[in-house]
Amino acid sequence: MIAIDWGTSSVRAWRLGPEGVAAEARAAPLGIMAVPDGDFAEAFTGLVGDWLAEGEGRALLSGMIGSRQGWREAPYLPCPADPALLAQQLLAVPFDGAEIRIVPGLVGADASGVPEVMRGEETQLLGLAHAIGGTGTVCLPGTHSKWATLKEGAIVGSTTHMTGEVFAALRSHTILGRLMSGPAGGGPAFADGVLRSGQPGGLLHHAFGARTLVLLDRMASDQAASYLSGLLIGHEVRSATEGLPAGAAVQLVGAAELCTHYGEALALLGFVAHGPEGDWALAGLRRIGEAIGWL
Amino acid sequence: MIAIDWGTSSVRAWRLGPEGVAAEARAAPLGIMAVPDGDFAEAFTGLVGDWLAEGEGRALLSGMIGSRQGWREAPYLPCPADPALLAQQLLAVPFDGAEIRIVPGLVGADASGVPEVMRGEETQLLGLAHAIGGTGTVCLPGTHSKWATLKEGAIVGSTTHMTGEVFAALRSHTILGRLMSGPAGGGPAFADGVLRSGQPGGLLHHAFGARTLVLLDRMASDQAASYLSGLLIGHEVRSATEGLPAGAAVQLVGAAELCTHYGEALALLGFVAHGPEGDWALAGLRRIGEAIGWL
Repeated sequence: MIAIDWGTSSVRAWRLGPEGVAAEARAAPLGIMAVPDGDFAEAFTGLVGDWLAEGEGRALLSGMIGSRQGWREAPYLPCPADPALLAQQLLAVPFDGAEIRIVPGLVGADASGVPEVMRGEETQLLGLAHAIGGTGTVCLPGTHSKWATLKEGAIVGSTTHMTGEVFAALRSHTILGRLMSGPAGGGPAFADGVLRSGQPGGLLHHAFGARTLVLLDRMASDQAASYLSGLLIGHEVRSATEGLPAGAAVQLVGAAELCTHYGEALALLGFVAHGPEGDWALAGLRRIGEAIGWL
Repeated sequence: MIAIDWGTSSVRAWRLGPEGVAAEARAAPLGIMAVPDGDFAEAFTGLVGDWLAEGEGRALLSGMIGSRQGWREAPYLPCPADPALLAQQLLAVPFDGAEIRIVPGLVGADASGVPEVMRGEETQLLGLAHAIGGTGTVCLPGTHSKWATLKEGAIVGSTTHMTGEVFAALRSHTILGRLMSGPAGGGPAFADGVLRSGQPGGLLHHAFGARTLVLLDRMASDQAASYLSGLLIGHEVRSATEGLPAGAAVQLVGAAELCTHYGEALALLGFVAHGPEGDWALAGLRRIGEAIGWL
């Protein structure tokens, strides 16, 4: 079978043998927003047409390709969801020359009943679930960080935190950017920000400190971005780990540098970060492929 | 004496009789950033030159006119500060034809030792302090909301919350704006946002709900701005009132519509909002004028 992780900005494809071994892999900067004229059939043929010609007849796709802006919208399935449920609800895409199925996204609600959605992460999470024994807390840091709870191989629920996007908006579009130079990184200022998140006053007040500390020569301007990053990540981690016992393990999945920073924040706040190595989108596509008998 | 409240975007001037009665008042859109070539002496003469010619010889100025970008920088004084202290530390500005004094801003620290500054608000607060008996909690909502504690006529401390500016940045520079139409106002969506601020998950998670609630048809897109506004104001008010007993009074000073929304949030969270009527910058300038014997 062919496995494809098709996101907003890029696409990756694998040709899998019967045991799920990736015989070939390729990637392209052809995310769903970059497909000319939204002609996904054409883009799909351009990406894996040679594999089809060589006899592959089945393709399993996950990610934003199943969104309203993608090839065909695959309605969200309710949580909890495991590979067997997703396998039953794959969306078939009519295509001359191959059987194509899209993995649906998931919809759930947080503890207060406010909706949560994911699309693409469900496949990564199911790939990871298998590797960590089926149960655990997972954090996928990024523009919109997702925290998910896995139980006995199923995705029970998730919460989204706008941490990366709020950082960018505060830095580029508020007064904070004026006294901020250089990139955000780790180090003492990042740790100061993480620890600040637990003090009284709340995020809207804490953020202003990234200005006043520089204004009154208590922090160098080239440390302010790291401080603000630590502050926001600290607020995210504190909120997302409410209810977890001290010392609990959190699985971090994402870009290496970002996971390092989240690992540092988790350690400062009394949790144990794990960074399991693997390509979890591919692993999840394999698991769903197995569930429908394609592997 | 002449009293002048000279801010970033506008300036207001009063001609006060010996009892502090405002015989004349005028205003101009000539904030410190709008003064041509930074020639503040020229702008001052343009504003009140006729009063000087008629015999006024003393002018007391407050606001951003005393900042590094203003006429002359008046160094911040430490909190706590009362009118007598400020009166001792006024900054004299050399000017041919009048005695000019600028009220300094204040510097303090929040409960965790992070610096806080104000410039202009100290004069409003001292004017208000007199009117409310010298002691109380004051909120000045806005782009950067300030909460101040007054005790026996002195400003004890303050905290700043970036609520208004964060709202603008989230609305205009994050994905939240895409599913948001129309202005922010009061009403049920605002109240929902205020109450949401007390649920688990934290602000970075709660903000994302302004998207998912619309995405899943749980909220109309023309209500999303009010919801986000309520959410941010709710977070601010909860954090700023930590330590206040339930039912405590909060004095609101600022634009009428914004104070109405803050009053609604305070009521929802169990506090009593007061909106004392008055021109507190003028009242504060009067009090300092009295302390230096100009009135």
